[in-house]
Amino acid sequence: MNKKNLNELEKYLDENITIVGFVDNIRDLQYVQFLIIRDSYGKLQVTIEKNEENNKLNEIVSNLSCESTVKITGKLIKNEKVKLNGMELIPNGIIITSKCLEELPINYKEMNSSLIDTRLNYRFLDLRNEKNNLMFKVQTCLINAMREFVVKSNFVEIHTPKIISAASESGSDVFELKYFDRKAYLAQSPQFYKQMAMCSGFERVFEIAPAFRAEKSNSYRHTTEFTSFDIEISYLENLEELMDFEENLIIAGLSEVKEKYESEIKRLFNVDIIIPTKPFPRIKLEELYKILEEKYNFKMNYEDVGDMNAESEKLASKYIKEKYGHEFVFITDFSAKKRAFYHKREKGIPQGADLIWKGCETTTLAIRENRYEILCNQAEEKGLKDDVKFYLEFFKYGCPPHGGFAIGVDRLTMLLLETMSLKETMFIFRGPSRIEP
Amino acid sequence: MNKKNLNELEKYLDENITIVGFVDNIRDLQYVQFLIIRDSYGKLQVTIEKNEENNKLNEIVSNLSCESTVKITGKLIKNEKVKLNGMELIPNGIIITSKCLEELPINYKEMNSSLIDTRLNYRFLDLRNEKNNLMFKVQTCLINAMREFVVKSNFVEIHTPKIISAASESGSDVFELKYFDRKAYLAQSPQFYKQMAMCSGFERVFEIAPAFRAEKSNSYRHTTEFTSFDIEISYLENLEELMDFEENLIIAGLSEVKEKYESEIKRLFNVDIIIPTKPFPRIKLEELYKILEEKYNFKMNYEDVGDMNAESEKLASKYIKEKYGHEFVFITDFSAKKRAFYHKREKGIPQGADLIWKGCETTTLAIRENRYEILCNQAEEKGLKDDVKFYLEFFKYGCPPHGGFAIGVDRLTMLLLETMSLKETMFIFRGPSRIEP
Repeated sequence: MNKKNLNELEKYLDENITIVGFVDNIRDLQYVQFLIIRDSYGKLQVTIEKNEENNKLNEIVSNLSCESTVKITGKLIKNEKVKLNGMELIPNGIIITSKCLEELPINYKEMNSSLIDTRLNYRFLDLRNEKNNLMFKVQTCLINAMREFVVKSNFVEIHTPKIISAASESGSDVFELKYFDRKAYLAQSPQFYKQMAMCSGFERVFEIAPAFRAEKSNSYRHTTEFTSFDIEISYLENLEELMDFEENLIIAGLSEVKEKYESEIKRLFNVDIIIPTKPFPRIKLEELYKILEEKYNFKMNYEDVGDMNAESEKLASKYIKEKYGHEFVFITDFSAKKRAFYHKREKGIPQGADLIWKGCETTTLAIRENRYEILCNQAEEKGLKDDVKFYLEFFKYGCPPHGGFAIGVDRLTMLLLETMSLKETMFIFRGPSRIEP
Repeated sequence: MNKKNLNELEKYLDENITIVGFVDNIRDLQYVQFLIIRDSYGKLQVTIEKNEENNKLNEIVSNLSCESTVKITGKLIKNEKVKLNGMELIPNGIIITSKCLEELPINYKEMNSSLIDTRLNYRFLDLRNEKNNLMFKVQTCLINAMREFVVKSNFVEIHTPKIISAASESGSDVFELKYFDRKAYLAQSPQFYKQMAMCSGFERVFEIAPAFRAEKSNSYRHTTEFTSFDIEISYLENLEELMDFEENLIIAGLSEVKEKYESEIKRLFNVDIIIPTKPFPRIKLEELYKILEEKYNFKMNYEDVGDMNAESEKLASKYIKEKYGHEFVFITDFSAKKRAFYHKREKGIPQGADLIWKGCETTTLAIRENRYEILCNQAEEKGLKDDVKFYLEFFKYGCPPHGGFAIGVDRLTMLLLETMSLKETMFIFRGPSRIEP
């Protein structure tokens, strides 16, 4: 626990210290042996002269394999000739704490995206790559800053059930489960339960938890299991307030990432972290269609009209970037036909939006219909009234006006670091043909 | 979003303000109408005289039902005669934002534990009770303080897959799933994946996520789906370090709860929040058995020897409380037969412990076996080598010494507030015969 991180050794110069880590490299020369030791923070050279006195150490190093883990005690000294930090450790003791038994099955130092499927088979090695190592630190920082933002805003954290008795929103794309002597399903989202919290008077809730989709999609941005950052807020006046809240949330997250990891992200991912200005641009769907047709000669397929698709999302971002120099855009005024039954409508228009970032949808926001009878009618209209009976029940006994949204944590990280595939971004990816490791 | 919480109105006295909330009570008298409005923070009296001028308001109130939600604008004035906070709102506008349609199916103001199953059917109403409302604020505070503690200690947050291709630790008690054209399972814990993160050089990770157990147990402390706060740490020297870390983690959580909610917890749950002193008492299992026999004439069943059970946990706490005045105790030196194959052993003794709080196990901690060959042997010994093949693979290519533990979030909350049943404590309970709502 008193581990010394290898990027913070400066202060121990000329002291006898103990370091731990993986063996990153070994050079066993005629008169000297060099080890490079790596931890999650940096690297250090360990230098062992070959001589009588070092006999035991020399033997240990001769039998050492790269990627083994070691615990090394020795004197840390300055040495200008050492390229790595200008310092080296002269050891007097080396303990091998675990051995790397064989040749590595992949070269994790090369993150060749065309080999992603082989790499995923050995994800435990692939994650040793310094980009992957950084990626999860960045994700931790991003999500934690967003979470701190909501906790400070008096949100209550809830943990909603993932095993449910009826499909969340529609029967399709849902995983079925044997639950003792009956059937159950995996929750596609905590939508109904976070709204239930509103009916219970919780006012503001959040949840960060897995969500499950049995979609047979192999796109770069789909997965069967993802982490969803869900938000639900009572007593909102309108959609504008909700969009404003999400802007603040995202700015809180990105600001923290920029402060802590800007230069490392630039070095390893060649990505600039841009803190968006407020308000993010907003555009109505119909207006967007017009512009995309005029500017890029793009026309939506008939069956998709009233909605967005992958291509229109890309072009929307392109247009907004050109016009406003902004990475984000809210698209509003979708067609009621294309939106969930529980979105509140005004003059037939769902009071919701999609937030697009760098050409990819990251969030669907909406004010919810909180009035029992209207909600029943809208469920009926979509042919869902029987399926969502238990949910409709929540609204019989009073429910404040409310709205909310969900952000895909993995997708957000993918867009932030521009890895451009969930396979690269998730700790362990899950897709229609992958449930290993 | 500029909602005024009803416990913070003092500063708006003599101002015209808008409040929102549920209608908690209505008294419609001959010359005056009283409403009590409730939000998640407090209550306020709204007073409407019956007269010509108030005609419209009087009519609205006459048709209003309790538990509807409202938005009320009016002047906030001091009135010593009003028992509730010594103030009242004299309204000039009332908008009903949702209606409570019928008689409530349960009286949520009475939390009768013998009616828990009926209450769970209407959990969305049951959660309106002020004890339940407080419970989730306290849980949010507790878990957030613990999470902040680990984030500040450079832990990386991971999101491990819940859909897995092989049962986590053994084939029993696992839910089976249809995954497209094959079978899959729900993860019983992130154990193997958080250890994988150690193999990947992540050094310190945490996860707060659901875990699933297909146990047909109906005890007060079992559920089929719970929230697990998982910790894994590389480069630990020994179990002592791990126990020390957990002590600090728990103290961080409890201290924050005490600071924010001590008096409210005392008022509603009649529980004192005691910050434990360090180190928590530790006792070896064999020694504990001797003491329990001497003091309480308690003897473990033959088949349980080498382990703890519900009764010995209770008595252990009783003894420790009497002897040291401490609520916590670490039990160490379990039998290798009773512990998981991946626990590191020294002279045959698993380097692990159970943490007992208020008579109930809250955590199993252990240093893990990180050496491939020994780990294989221990898996073989338990007859699990084939089942955990993919996990053993992680250890072939070097893995730092490490250890960790998992705390059940629901159980921790239950013990903190002494609700003494997970049915009372979970946002929505799941058991062998309950997957609704």
